[in-house]
Amino acid sequence: MLKATTIKQQSFKIIEGSVSSAKGFSAGGLHAGLKYKNLDLGWVFSEVPANAVGVYTTNSFQAAPLKVTQESIAIENKLQSIIVNSAVANACTGQQGLDNAYEMRRVFARHLAIPEHLIAVASTGVIGDQLPMDKIKKGISKIILEDSQADTFERAILTTDTSTKQVAVTLEIDGKTVTIGGAAKGSGMIHPNMATMLSFITTDAHIDPQDLRQALKDTTDQTFNMITVDGDTSTNDMVLTLANGLADNERLTTTHSQWSEFIDAYTFVAETLAKKIARDGEGATKLIEVHVTGAANEQAAKAISKAIVGSSLVKTAVFGVDPNWGRVICAVGYSDQPLDPAKINVAVGAIPVVKHGLPLVFDEEAAQNHLSQEKVELFINLEDGEGEAVAWGCDLTYDYVKINASYRT
Amino acid sequence: MLKATTIKQQSFKIIEGSVSSAKGFSAGGLHAGLKYKNLDLGWVFSEVPANAVGVYTTNSFQAAPLKVTQESIAIENKLQSIIVNSAVANACTGQQGLDNAYEMRRVFARHLAIPEHLIAVASTGVIGDQLPMDKIKKGISKIILEDSQADTFERAILTTDTSTKQVAVTLEIDGKTVTIGGAAKGSGMIHPNMATMLSFITTDAHIDPQDLRQALKDTTDQTFNMITVDGDTSTNDMVLTLANGLADNERLTTTHSQWSEFIDAYTFVAETLAKKIARDGEGATKLIEVHVTGAANEQAAKAISKAIVGSSLVKTAVFGVDPNWGRVICAVGYSDQPLDPAKINVAVGAIPVVKHGLPLVFDEEAAQNHLSQEKVELFINLEDGEGEAVAWGCDLTYDYVKINASYRT
Repeated sequence: MLKATTIKQQSFKIIEGSVSSAKGFSAGGLHAGLKYKNLDLGWVFSEVPANAVGVYTTNSFQAAPLKVTQESIAIENKLQSIIVNSAVANACTGQQGLDNAYEMRRVFARHLAIPEHLIAVASTGVIGDQLPMDKIKKGISKIILEDSQADTFERAILTTDTSTKQVAVTLEIDGKTVTIGGAAKGSGMIHPNMATMLSFITTDAHIDPQDLRQALKDTTDQTFNMITVDGDTSTNDMVLTLANGLADNERLTTTHSQWSEFIDAYTFVAETLAKKIARDGEGATKLIEVHVTGAANEQAAKAISKAIVGSSLVKTAVFGVDPNWGRVICAVGYSDQPLDPAKINVAVGAIPVVKHGLPLVFDEEAAQNHLSQEKVELFINLEDGEGEAVAWGCDLTYDYVKINASYRT
Repeated sequence: MLKATTIKQQSFKIIEGSVSSAKGFSAGGLHAGLKYKNLDLGWVFSEVPANAVGVYTTNSFQAAPLKVTQESIAIENKLQSIIVNSAVANACTGQQGLDNAYEMRRVFARHLAIPEHLIAVASTGVIGDQLPMDKIKKGISKIILEDSQADTFERAILTTDTSTKQVAVTLEIDGKTVTIGGAAKGSGMIHPNMATMLSFITTDAHIDPQDLRQALKDTTDQTFNMITVDGDTSTNDMVLTLANGLADNERLTTTHSQWSEFIDAYTFVAETLAKKIARDGEGATKLIEVHVTGAANEQAAKAISKAIVGSSLVKTAVFGVDPNWGRVICAVGYSDQPLDPAKINVAVGAIPVVKHGLPLVFDEEAAQNHLSQEKVELFINLEDGEGEAVAWGCDLTYDYVKINASYRT
């Protein structure tokens, strides 16, 4: 079992980098006019077609670009490029929205002179508006791959985000340097499974596409699906991973002796992006990391950790620097998982506050000090089994209300 | 099927009244010193033992008083009196908490000179603190049944509530006047199933206890379990119904010709209390009522209506007077119910905003006018079956954050 937070930085090295760090990848962004002033159209490009896998929102109202992207990948499980717009989600837009997503893919394919099915399309923004295709097409015509700069891509995909989100690592496989990098956006409408988030991970690793698909699924369950901002699962979420093989390692499969090293590095990239999304939750001032151990099983641990990190009362208590463990217990209790109330232990940071279901006398000031940090950790041990999980979220603040009471109008 | 909002006021009459309106019932409250100044100890009393049924929180950490109350009722399915304190929930208090709940029951039984098992105990307030038994006992000793006034009971059970919650109706059954009345509290930690709420309904109807139990369960599923404030299900929720038979009607059973009239009246009482709880959600400025029709089945309709009314993004949009139907669609989409995205219709009040999955051009100002009302209604028709449900909630405001960032400290 992957333990997201227990990845030791043994086999990989964190580098300054992003979605374009792996060999043969570039990424960029420009202003196409969907936003008033900010960048709003981004692209990722690989010199050669890359093995590609994706996971998509579970929302019934899956947006048009997700359908087009899935169709692209279905052809030969490869992608060479991704085109992303922000500001307009192209969700709930019917046949015209679908036509527009195809058109966006077609125009970009023609611009790059590559087959359409090697292109993924992604959108994020307001639901229900049609894409302004004139602006999109004019924007695409201005894309110059040679001028690509990853930081402009990172900015072009943002909506209410307050910061860009990127990470990259390298590791040696078969004596070759393999790089994995990624960029993501996401700030509101964030909840498993698949938040309002777009996440793009690229690697030059040579890897079996079936095994890569399973790795993405497993890793997503441990990372992107373990974050929540507001409990709302968006119509547009997707995580794509492209592996173009240019690192020239022996093909990675689950039987490769360094498979687990690659997975650790890949998971670290996904986890880092997921945490950056949670930390940048709308209005958030803090990252909340909830560790559950001793649950009946992993499934129970996941459900309990998500219930805690998703509780409005826990989130406001963290915002208010209030070590109100009663709300943590309450969330554990309604998570609908097997547990023994008389065995639960809770700690706020390093400070135990509940032992076997009963409150401890604790140093309130020390607990408040921990809750004042930018990263707040809650530890719950159920003493009821071997199940473990970690979930991430953020505090609920006045600014969350402010941002969302006036997003559209 | 009961349709909560479609109850026609045919068979019953709404009267000014409360939990003490039915024949033989009294209720009162006093200041025992658990709160600084406000009333904090309340009681309900029936001149004769009443058939009694209850429903309780599904939270694993069920508080001590709920255990004691369930034990009381289990003896002969009767109660004669209820004792309630606010300020301290007596939850997560271990053996001492349980001992204290028993002691509270014992002391009150002695004071009233009735058997212990005819008494229910309820608590609401902060989790984890032990009851200050000296104050509780001294408070009980001051209870004078003759001085009972329902409004003092209504106030004594409040925590962060901003208003008392009561309702009463009468109807004729077998030519006798039957009265049903109730009082409730609840403001935060409110989510199905069983919110942080206490709700007490009394009637002088003569009624079969088995049928009363089923009626309470059915009615709760249509009313109290269809409200949400913040998604947090408390450790202390309970709804009790006492029927003392003093109206002298023929015994009501499901085969009685006026059974459905009684159920309509009973449901109206429960629904009214539920709506008052939702409207008084912490920091709320508006009641949100979500009507789902045309769902695949009733279960789907309930899940969808609850997803919408529980969405932080919908709640903030209503607060911000923003007819952001995309968030409604999004919530429908992640409710994990069968539906056809191309068939959904959405209306804000009387204004259709989505038809068959696509946005309509609508009068934005008219929609904003509706969203500015104190009661906001959203209508969702899925055109996919006969399932219907109504759910109630409230907007998410700056004051919700304010109240909950500083509740305990």
